[in-house]
Amino acid sequence: MLTYWNNYPTIQNKLQAVCSIIEEQLAVRNKEIQDTLTDFANSGGKYLRPAFFLLFAELGPKEQQNNQQLLQVAASIEILHMATLIHDDIIDDSPKRRSQITIQSKYGKDIAVYAGDLLFTQFFDLLTQTINGSSYMSINARAMKSLLLGELDQMHTRFNQQETIEQYLKSINGKTAELFWLACSEGAHFGQTTSEIEKKAGEIGRNIGLAFQIYDDILDYTAQEKVLQKPILEDLAQGVYTLPLILAKKGHEDEFAFYLDKKNLLTAKEAQKVAALVNKYHGIEKARQMALAYTQKALEEIEQLPRGQSSDNIKKLTQKLLQRVY
Amino acid sequence: MLTYWNNYPTIQNKLQAVCSIIEEQLAVRNKEIQDTLTDFANSGGKYLRPAFFLLFAELGPKEQQNNQQLLQVAASIEILHMATLIHDDIIDDSPKRRSQITIQSKYGKDIAVYAGDLLFTQFFDLLTQTINGSSYMSINARAMKSLLLGELDQMHTRFNQQETIEQYLKSINGKTAELFWLACSEGAHFGQTTSEIEKKAGEIGRNIGLAFQIYDDILDYTAQEKVLQKPILEDLAQGVYTLPLILAKKGHEDEFAFYLDKKNLLTAKEAQKVAALVNKYHGIEKARQMALAYTQKALEEIEQLPRGQSSDNIKKLTQKLLQRVY
Repeated sequence: MLTYWNNYPTIQNKLQAVCSIIEEQLAVRNKEIQDTLTDFANSGGKYLRPAFFLLFAELGPKEQQNNQQLLQVAASIEILHMATLIHDDIIDDSPKRRSQITIQSKYGKDIAVYAGDLLFTQFFDLLTQTINGSSYMSINARAMKSLLLGELDQMHTRFNQQETIEQYLKSINGKTAELFWLACSEGAHFGQTTSEIEKKAGEIGRNIGLAFQIYDDILDYTAQEKVLQKPILEDLAQGVYTLPLILAKKGHEDEFAFYLDKKNLLTAKEAQKVAALVNKYHGIEKARQMALAYTQKALEEIEQLPRGQSSDNIKKLTQKLLQRVY
Repeated sequence: MLTYWNNYPTIQNKLQAVCSIIEEQLAVRNKEIQDTLTDFANSGGKYLRPAFFLLFAELGPKEQQNNQQLLQVAASIEILHMATLIHDDIIDDSPKRRSQITIQSKYGKDIAVYAGDLLFTQFFDLLTQTINGSSYMSINARAMKSLLLGELDQMHTRFNQQETIEQYLKSINGKTAELFWLACSEGAHFGQTTSEIEKKAGEIGRNIGLAFQIYDDILDYTAQEKVLQKPILEDLAQGVYTLPLILAKKGHEDEFAFYLDKKNLLTAKEAQKVAALVNKYHGIEKARQMALAYTQKALEEIEQLPRGQSSDNIKKLTQKLLQRVY
């Protein structure tokens, strides 16, 4: 969905090149897997993470910008992201992603396991080809581990009504914010900015990631499915209790327990009742306030970056991404 | 199953250290995954691949041998092997491995997906900690890719009665021989032997791997399940047609097609009939001859290594491993 970047022609061009690198990486002798992955790569992802990577790289010296290495590392981040999405869809048994049928539901879990594995391999391979010997090799390995541990945290707390805000934040910090942290700080690093900017970039990325995930979790309660005109509530059905529910539940545990005790036997109608309670006890409003606080923090930190076209673009993108209307 | 190494005390001690490194790598904050993986690591694998790695490393200078780096790289190979086993068991829907219940059947496919992913991560992490910047970073990434493509080849040719010997060999070359190739050449490399020995080590590893997999596939037809006293025929049931069947089928396609056309509806009784045909048309005997040829080739190449305790050990182990009695 590179049309998302119509107002950022430089980034749009670079992302086009990133797409080509990804497509090259997906060329393997197993045509079934290749087609599956190529479809998935073209299924409407916004390429947000490589975009942030490239935007932060642009804070570095001009002569650094037309560098094939930068595009390859940007591609590696998207490939890692794609790998985790494919495996997460297996765990969640998700029928759809980006309004397209998921790989696991279209081709079966078997293909989905190997498709994700192949992307992990290509992520690793792309890095060894481009930044072998860099300190970012270890940093990438650890980021990959954080993503997984974040997902495991989420799986571990399923159907747990005692889940705290801290546990929720720890999980989304790993599963989502870590990759934004990586994209921004790695971009600043290979764009050859200063180590101070690199550190700041990582902090900005983390706050953007946290806000992004909270908004995403709010969407599960507020977005209307086109036909049904009802919230989707996919997380709720899976026993994944996100911030709006955790915040609303405080002081009203019994009312929620009446439904949540049913665990995976909760009906769609009952889920709607839970959503109504989340709304009644201001869970969405409060979650939105927390997301806004992380967004504000990111924007304040962006103000501390060297002024210019690049930091302006980072600011505009952050606002566009996080001040969405629901 | 380090008792397998009772006659190789030096290797046994080193493998003990390798086990400890692996166990350290499995220490993550998700206790369920940690316990699952620790159980699996202790479930009776022989640690063949790290053993070959260490044996080939011993061809290098003495002062190189008590090196933590060597043990860590040896551990990385076993971790990669474990990761692929766990995901393969998901694809094969295998109830058992090493006479223990598989992770996917004990804890579900969800845990198995993430358990394998975590091992891929730890593999990558261990390498970035120990050999970052080495040419073996890319070599490892490509080996990991070959393993996967070999598995995909196998999945792709399921229930395909036209599968050729060449296709079979290509698949086992990727899914099995590649990792023996890696273990042996990487051992020679980090043991600081010569580049000539390193190349030879890889060739030896590849031949050992091919013979090893062929013997393993023969076992599916000849090993008796303790209770039933019948062959296991797990591959056959899954539509994975291995060398004994491919060799026996030549010139008797129709007789086999009568059964194989039933695909996944083949009953256990019918599978026994197929096994009888494989035997009748000398499939096992012919496959054994091919395995023997690869073993002989490996042994001849081992003779070309510098003489000494290390090459003697490599020879003894190869003989022990590949001249098994069935």
